[in-house]
Amino acid sequence: MTVVSRKEDSIDPFGTSSVEDYEHLYKEFGIEPFGPLLSKVSKPSLYMRRGIVFGHRDFSRVLDAMQSHKKFAVLSGIKPTGEFHLGTLMTAKEIIYFQKHGAQTFYCVADLEAYEDNKISLDRSEETAIDNIADMFALGLDPKKTYIYRQSRENRVKDLAILLGRPVTLATMKAVYGERRIGLYLSALIQAGDILLPQLEDFGGPKPTVVPVGIDQDPHLRFTRDLSQAFKRKYGFVPPSSTYHKLIKGLDGSPKMSKRLRNYFTLHDKTETITNKVSNAFTGGRNSIREQRELGGVPEICPVYEICLFHFVESDDAIRKTYDACKTGKILCGEHKEQVIDCVLKFVKEHKRRKRKLLEKAKAAIRTS
Amino acid sequence: MTVVSRKEDSIDPFGTSSVEDYEHLYKEFGIEPFGPLLSKVSKPSLYMRRGIVFGHRDFSRVLDAMQSHKKFAVLSGIKPTGEFHLGTLMTAKEIIYFQKHGAQTFYCVADLEAYEDNKISLDRSEETAIDNIADMFALGLDPKKTYIYRQSRENRVKDLAILLGRPVTLATMKAVYGERRIGLYLSALIQAGDILLPQLEDFGGPKPTVVPVGIDQDPHLRFTRDLSQAFKRKYGFVPPSSTYHKLIKGLDGSPKMSKRLRNYFTLHDKTETITNKVSNAFTGGRNSIREQRELGGVPEICPVYEICLFHFVESDDAIRKTYDACKTGKILCGEHKEQVIDCVLKFVKEHKRRKRKLLEKAKAAIRTS
Repeated sequence: MTVVSRKEDSIDPFGTSSVEDYEHLYKEFGIEPFGPLLSKVSKPSLYMRRGIVFGHRDFSRVLDAMQSHKKFAVLSGIKPTGEFHLGTLMTAKEIIYFQKHGAQTFYCVADLEAYEDNKISLDRSEETAIDNIADMFALGLDPKKTYIYRQSRENRVKDLAILLGRPVTLATMKAVYGERRIGLYLSALIQAGDILLPQLEDFGGPKPTVVPVGIDQDPHLRFTRDLSQAFKRKYGFVPPSSTYHKLIKGLDGSPKMSKRLRNYFTLHDKTETITNKVSNAFTGGRNSIREQRELGGVPEICPVYEICLFHFVESDDAIRKTYDACKTGKILCGEHKEQVIDCVLKFVKEHKRRKRKLLEKAKAAIRTS
Repeated sequence: MTVVSRKEDSIDPFGTSSVEDYEHLYKEFGIEPFGPLLSKVSKPSLYMRRGIVFGHRDFSRVLDAMQSHKKFAVLSGIKPTGEFHLGTLMTAKEIIYFQKHGAQTFYCVADLEAYEDNKISLDRSEETAIDNIADMFALGLDPKKTYIYRQSRENRVKDLAILLGRPVTLATMKAVYGERRIGLYLSALIQAGDILLPQLEDFGGPKPTVVPVGIDQDPHLRFTRDLSQAFKRKYGFVPPSSTYHKLIKGLDGSPKMSKRLRNYFTLHDKTETITNKVSNAFTGGRNSIREQRELGGVPEICPVYEICLFHFVESDDAIRKTYDACKTGKILCGEHKEQVIDCVLKFVKEHKRRKRKLLEKAKAAIRTS
């Protein structure tokens, strides 16, 4: 699914993908646009403000709970297959946002999925997970206020998966996931167990739950929402809500960061690696300096602009200035890359420093999970 | 699958189904006939002696362990869907036989299967399971030497199910079980987990394991044997062995006892019910007394004879005498039924007496399982 196009006629600094790219999601899948809700969110996150969170299912339910100070939960997690990169960083920030706004917080280490999907042993997962959790803490996740667990150790999730699987027909599985290995279907049921875990009596019972994810994860949400209805009588489940963020482009300009293409950097990479990767990134620059001075650049298709927009420029004013400078040809790509490299290296350095201090806490969290 | 025919030309008192009925199982499915092994078993069970256990997979492996006093295990279980009847009684006796011959013994209360297959809640299963376990103890299962567990509480089984599911293709599932609900596939994986549980390190590691079952359960064995090979490197599994017993006829003469047909009695039934059911049972009798005196009866097709053969006549000499008396027309069906009713009622009375004393022990066993 390609949700990112290369339209050059946009004049929206936040519009690296235009709204039309998502129209078919709204129409075909019943995902609702986030825009109309934005004014109702009292302190929207950066992703909400910038339209990076572009769609949702049933988010009003969560918003109501937030605004009337009723209980609600946020759940997301990580498949411990590698180091934190700019994609994982997005979900991380979203969880932390909801935590800070009062959500009961669940963070899942999806080691069973890493096993089912990527054949990674549970032992190997543990090491990676410790590292990932330390990243989360360094980013601001509150260890004391977060229920962190590993799928392989959380029997309630496995039990839910087994119980929820009962009525599911093969036709449904094929419709949602295609003709796949049984392991993949198991993995899907386990994810449904994750998403509904916050609503078990052990955690205070049914409540609105938001799952912030990339748009590519929507099938899991649709599937789990259906299951929540099938088991409503038994558990009283509230259908889980979701928000969808755009996927961050690869540094080569391709629509998604991918391991295979090595078109991204991680928060663990060395200064040199990051410098090289950003220096060699694709941009929205023109064929010559003269042309760029005359016509301006095309930030809408530029992954270097996008990493600023998504991650490295906090202030909306500042990002707007960058956008304008690019559009009007005041700043050239080389110059901008240098600024971005500085900014990224500063962030990474500070992140690593914080993280080092939190490794022991992460180990403790994972050992008891 | 009909494995019981109505041949009248048999002269074998143990041959309620002739060997030819099983030929296709040997040829098509690779089940081996039990006969050739019989002389090697030092103290064969009643079912082995009478050809009721007619087939096996890899039983030599278990036999070797038994004879050289090496460790081996027996595993079977019950789906807690109702009261003990003459079918469940068969597996029960087989487990007890292997336990008495040195097997590490595992008894599984298949409550997840009862949920998946019969939609019975885990709570309801618990009550039935207590009753079933009390039956097992009354029949001679040693509570101290048996690992009794409920699938829903045995996380090792669920974990195995999830791990074993990974490489299984949909094509394999369909080939073994047909196009079914995902719940049924889950149920199959859970059974595979049960069968391999005795070989986990927690229980002393890999060892020959025999699973005594009715022939209708063979798909589970084939499936689990394949999985045991797929995970051999990780767990060192020895492919599980199985023995297959014939299915006991319904009292109406149909090939299998079934809830739908109510063609059986349970060990809980009242004296009156049992008396009526046996009195009204189908038999191998002739059209008239004269004819029967002249031609003799047909024990090969007679469910009343069969319940004696399978359950209520311990001595081979005695059953041979009954067979001869029927074949030669010396005994008529009414008379035989009276004898059988006496015998069954005596057994049931004694069983109930023993069982009453063991209910508390069964409760304790299930609460800690």
